Amino acid sequence: MAHPTDFELYGFWRTSATYRVRVALHLKGLRAEERVINLDAGEQLSPAFLAINPLGAIPALVERGHPPLTQSLAILEFLDETHPAPPLLPADPHGRARVRSIAAMLAGDTHPLITPRVRKYLAGVGGFDDAAIKAWMTHWFGAGLAAVEQRLASEAATGAFCHGEALTLADICLGSITVLARVNKLTLPPLPTIDRIMARCEALEAFANADPLKQEGAPKAA
Amino acid sequence: MAHPTDFELYGFWRTSATYRVRVALHLKGLRAEERVINLDAGEQLSPAFLAINPLGAIPALVERGHPPLTQSLAILEFLDETHPAPPLLPADPHGRARVRSIAAMLAGDTHPLITPRVRKYLAGVGGFDDAAIKAWMTHWFGAGLAAVEQRLASEAATGAFCHGEALTLADICLGSITVLARVNKLTLPPLPTIDRIMARCEALEAFANADPLKQEGAPKAA
Repeated sequence: MAHPTDFELYGFWRTSATYRVRVALHLKGLRAEERVINLDAGEQLSPAFLAINPLGAIPALVERGHPPLTQSLAILEFLDETHPAPPLLPADPHGRARVRSIAAMLAGDTHPLITPRVRKYLAGVGGFDDAAIKAWMTHWFGAGLAAVEQRLASEAATGAFCHGEALTLADICLGSITVLARVNKLTLPPLPTIDRIMARCEALEAFANADPLKQEGAPKAA
Repeated sequence: MAHPTDFELYGFWRTSATYRVRVALHLKGLRAEERVINLDAGEQLSPAFLAINPLGAIPALVERGHPPLTQSLAILEFLDETHPAPPLLPADPHGRARVRSIAAMLAGDTHPLITPRVRKYLAGVGGFDDAAIKAWMTHWFGAGLAAVEQRLASEAATGAFCHGEALTLADICLGSITVLARVNKLTLPPLPTIDRIMARCEALEAFANADPLKQEGAPKAA
């Protein structure tokens, strides 16, 4: 196990990508000092944070003596390679490909569409009002989760978790999207397989503790 | 080397994600029969293709006896694990994390914003006209590539390629976005480091042969 102060995690209560890293650190038994970068206040572009990550992007996982690690899936793969127990990927290449594919449907196809910078463009340049922004988010969360539901409900490899009986990257990514849909109070299509898997995940301390509403800076009664 | 008919690649001339798989197959010395799924004609939702991939998503790499592999980065990781030479990732975890992070900035943060389904929503629901769609694409390609340019120009790990002196996943993803920007005739900010690395990549047969304009179904004089 790494020393508690070996990592600093720069993140924000609400972001899906920070959630993914938080869950993975907990599962691996690693602790990171979490540093709040308030996206609503534009702190990701402050000189203090740009000195840490010139890209102004969170999450950034900082390990002493190394450049910041960025991009949640790259960070999860790094944690899995450097701290292999418990594994976040199955052992066989086909299983690993399936898990990474489900993870990419969520963290890749779905999440980038509803980030603050995209909503800002739609509101500013695209003339979207609040209702149109909410419809946009509902559409893409719904489409992304419905596609994953279809896979999970129909593919033989699905088990108690997204892939068999062990938790993987795919479950972490699924949690990061379903939790964000809940925070944003979005109305989604029925997702029975996802609901079943998420109930199992959210019973685990790693998922429960990563809940956005439990983080520093979260609204008190959301 | 796998038998030439071990894989079928379902793709389309223009898509960035198909390009990535095409380059990786070539680099690994693997051959796949490419099956054209004409997105403009809606063939991704045809019963024939849905029987192969119920998600209606390309690229899909089909290996006999296995479910289709989907999501380009998951496919590239699979090919790298099952056919390790030449490697598409460096050997050290920090280097692997950097390469995966750059790849995710392109295939994850940038590409999902400009896919046909997103442009269709913007045109249909959002009321974007052709000029607004082009401005949208120019904005996100420009922002994504400028962020990668900033990293490549400033980070010590950049070499002849995105990461040191060997080609990686990051270069494949970079090529897939720069080529698509060219096909769409987008006006981008100056990208001197990216231009230098791409000149090196495009001198390689794997990149040259994957050029969208050389594929079946591409317009004759674009």
